[in-house]
Amino acid sequence: MAKEITDREEDYSQWYLDIVKKAGLADNSAVRGCMVIKPQGYAIWEKIQRQLDDMFKATGHVNAYFPLLIPKSFLSKEAEHVEGFAKECAVVTHHRLMDNPDGSGVVVDPTAKLEEELIIRPTSETIIWNTYRDWIQSYRDLPLLINQWANVMRWEMRTRPFLRTAEFLWQEGHTAHSTKKEAIEESRLIHDLYADFAENYMAMPVIKGAKSANERFAGAVETYTIEAMMQDGKALQAGTSHFLGQNFAKAFDVKFLNEGNKEAYVWATSWGVSTRLIGGLIMTHSDDDGLVLPPKLAPLQVVIIPIPKPNGVLKEEAEKIKQELEAQGISVKIDIDKKKRPGYKFAEYEMQGVPVRIGIGARDLEQNQVEVARRDTKEKMNVSRDGLGQSIKDLLDDIQNNLLERARKFRDDRTHEAKNMEEFEEILETKGGFIMAHWDGTTETELAIKERTKATLRCIPLDSVLEEGVCVYSGKPSKQKVLFAKAY
Amino acid sequence: MAKEITDREEDYSQWYLDIVKKAGLADNSAVRGCMVIKPQGYAIWEKIQRQLDDMFKATGHVNAYFPLLIPKSFLSKEAEHVEGFAKECAVVTHHRLMDNPDGSGVVVDPTAKLEEELIIRPTSETIIWNTYRDWIQSYRDLPLLINQWANVMRWEMRTRPFLRTAEFLWQEGHTAHSTKKEAIEESRLIHDLYADFAENYMAMPVIKGAKSANERFAGAVETYTIEAMMQDGKALQAGTSHFLGQNFAKAFDVKFLNEGNKEAYVWATSWGVSTRLIGGLIMTHSDDDGLVLPPKLAPLQVVIIPIPKPNGVLKEEAEKIKQELEAQGISVKIDIDKKKRPGYKFAEYEMQGVPVRIGIGARDLEQNQVEVARRDTKEKMNVSRDGLGQSIKDLLDDIQNNLLERARKFRDDRTHEAKNMEEFEEILETKGGFIMAHWDGTTETELAIKERTKATLRCIPLDSVLEEGVCVYSGKPSKQKVLFAKAY
Repeated sequence: MAKEITDREEDYSQWYLDIVKKAGLADNSAVRGCMVIKPQGYAIWEKIQRQLDDMFKATGHVNAYFPLLIPKSFLSKEAEHVEGFAKECAVVTHHRLMDNPDGSGVVVDPTAKLEEELIIRPTSETIIWNTYRDWIQSYRDLPLLINQWANVMRWEMRTRPFLRTAEFLWQEGHTAHSTKKEAIEESRLIHDLYADFAENYMAMPVIKGAKSANERFAGAVETYTIEAMMQDGKALQAGTSHFLGQNFAKAFDVKFLNEGNKEAYVWATSWGVSTRLIGGLIMTHSDDDGLVLPPKLAPLQVVIIPIPKPNGVLKEEAEKIKQELEAQGISVKIDIDKKKRPGYKFAEYEMQGVPVRIGIGARDLEQNQVEVARRDTKEKMNVSRDGLGQSIKDLLDDIQNNLLERARKFRDDRTHEAKNMEEFEEILETKGGFIMAHWDGTTETELAIKERTKATLRCIPLDSVLEEGVCVYSGKPSKQKVLFAKAY
Repeated sequence: MAKEITDREEDYSQWYLDIVKKAGLADNSAVRGCMVIKPQGYAIWEKIQRQLDDMFKATGHVNAYFPLLIPKSFLSKEAEHVEGFAKECAVVTHHRLMDNPDGSGVVVDPTAKLEEELIIRPTSETIIWNTYRDWIQSYRDLPLLINQWANVMRWEMRTRPFLRTAEFLWQEGHTAHSTKKEAIEESRLIHDLYADFAENYMAMPVIKGAKSANERFAGAVETYTIEAMMQDGKALQAGTSHFLGQNFAKAFDVKFLNEGNKEAYVWATSWGVSTRLIGGLIMTHSDDDGLVLPPKLAPLQVVIIPIPKPNGVLKEEAEKIKQELEAQGISVKIDIDKKKRPGYKFAEYEMQGVPVRIGIGARDLEQNQVEVARRDTKEKMNVSRDGLGQSIKDLLDDIQNNLLERARKFRDDRTHEAKNMEEFEEILETKGGFIMAHWDGTTETELAIKERTKATLRCIPLDSVLEEGVCVYSGKPSKQKVLFAKAY
């Protein structure tokens, strides 16, 4: 089988596109910047959704659905919000087409112009807070802990499948609280939940931190983020949780009677992760042979391939093994296609990122064993047929752990401290990766560093130790190192 | 507790709106014709989704996701399709807003006009078949069995929550096949699957049939439908499955090399059900006290209410019962709110359609029993505490069956035969419901009957007996009775 994808060393960006294409994850579409998520890619999204949804529900959240379209005037009600989103949104202006008078196709019917234009939601704070006004009267109506699974649209100029597309799928939580403290706790709870999901399901280690004022969500008082390192050393913002203060409550006049029977504005949070996570999965684990998936999010965990061909006895044995594995809650497929050679199949499942491959041949049967190949290390081993279900279950756990540890080591090896701009720039040029450096806390310095190095302030880590120091750029005093990196 | 909803006898239409509001299913939104699906309503949709998704996957289908926006020119490629959808679609013409020069809010930026307008999908045949052209080269690429869960938009003039809204949620299957026979079989398979779901999960009996040419999906060769009777005797089209022939393959030039190495156009189906099903659930089972849900689709199946208040012993016992029920796979909640009286709670859960309510008081504990109330018949009974898990499981099954049988009897009692237009009109005026009548097979007659009676031809039932007769309207010969009714 011919080498199908570009090596990472050669061109990481092309390698990424090759993986997306060859593993059948996504395709370009006829609409600028919008992708088609293919079945193999969508199956990963379904695993992500199911797990996150369970976690949201376990923490008391419920799902609802709000309109796709937002009246244009809603956007303007929160001053920073409109700044953030008005310049890249799809605008609906008419509600009817008509036959082209020249007889060719259809054209917009000028008599069907909307009184007020509608925009396709880039995020739903405005339409949701306009609705919450009717739902919230008293403290007894709070908290409202609502999540929505939806498509959103941001008219991005440069797009890349999963990482940045005009339309993308996501979940957006929007909660309402009676106190500031409770809202902050909620935003932190979700921040922790995202980090838990990233590390324990995606096997993608993350740095938890707060965004600087400059990088905050448009309309937020505080934005918490999880930042992961991709294999090229660049950072990926993988999920954000926002404490919105009373900004949207004030913009949409959402008040409630508190326990003391006094009227007050409601406190808010919002938070989201998107199909971008699939891009993060790809760039955390995959290799030059294709996709590598953590077992907990792999739509198919084990493939069984009878060798050289699926004849009667081998097929029967494969079926037995399948049942034993399924009894352990493992998803399994037997490949009975007789037209393809085993070697071809091996490469195919490696490309698709199936975590474990089991080969069984006549001699294996005789020796009461099977050949097991793990996708992460590409190691092959003979495993006893006895207790195979448990062995494979343990192996999947081991792969899950190994992927996380490998990624953590990769990241830690590429995280450096810089004491001044010379060190800062040298790290970027020679090693790449994450840079921890003192910063004076001003947007001015943040932007100056970005201008000079293209590295951005990813976050102010929550768990970093306070220590006196001087800003790497301005030399002014600083109390804490923050995280810089080039980013997706 | 004051009577909260209109009686069905008094005003069925208002009763429906009252249920939607008081059971917390949906709300109007700030956008014309678009509803907000509230948590209680969305939880029902999630149950519907999960079950249907399992059934689609069990029959070999996979999910994918295609763009929300469709280039305007795609619509015109299939002549009937554009006729059906162009007159009620939301059109995106610009991709940016800008500050209003007069300083107030934002306006459309005239410099950000799209080269080609995009429409929000009313259904996805066109964008999907444009994509399939790249995915299908040979018979080995077929069949493609793909489903999509998505939002769609049709600019309807008169809307009602769930039944007809500008934006709605649905699933749309789009399959591609190498032979006509296989495509027809697929459309029939899904038709059967929809009927199975309607009857065995929604407890909503349906008539399976084919649509007349006049009522077919725009672009279909054959449309199969399931038609249910609502409590006011009107029909609800609850799901459709279309055999599309080669119409879309020809419009988008999707050809493949068949096993004989000859080029041929691909055969297609599409099929969908939507949030409309929730409207069907409401109008099949609910009563003047609120929502009634079949246990298989009830987000919460059993509520336990300690009486008069949740004290220590009663709370402990409630917790034990909860665990016993959960061990049977039943979803349970204990209501420990001390601020509300039991009578208030009873009415509240009746309104929400929880199938079974268990009350436990001190005397019940002494007598080793609990009080069980079923929502469907409002019957109350004392049930032994021993083996309660199994008893409640059996009761839920009984409720599920009872709802189906009750609805079936209701429908059969209101299905009449008409030999001529006098009988036809008399039935409509005095009894309502379904009318079985001979029809000459022409669109002319179908439209004349509609014009005269407002009843439409719902379907040509698949299981009706062939018999000679004369058309109820034209007196011309007919071989089969068909189903007429007023419809939603």
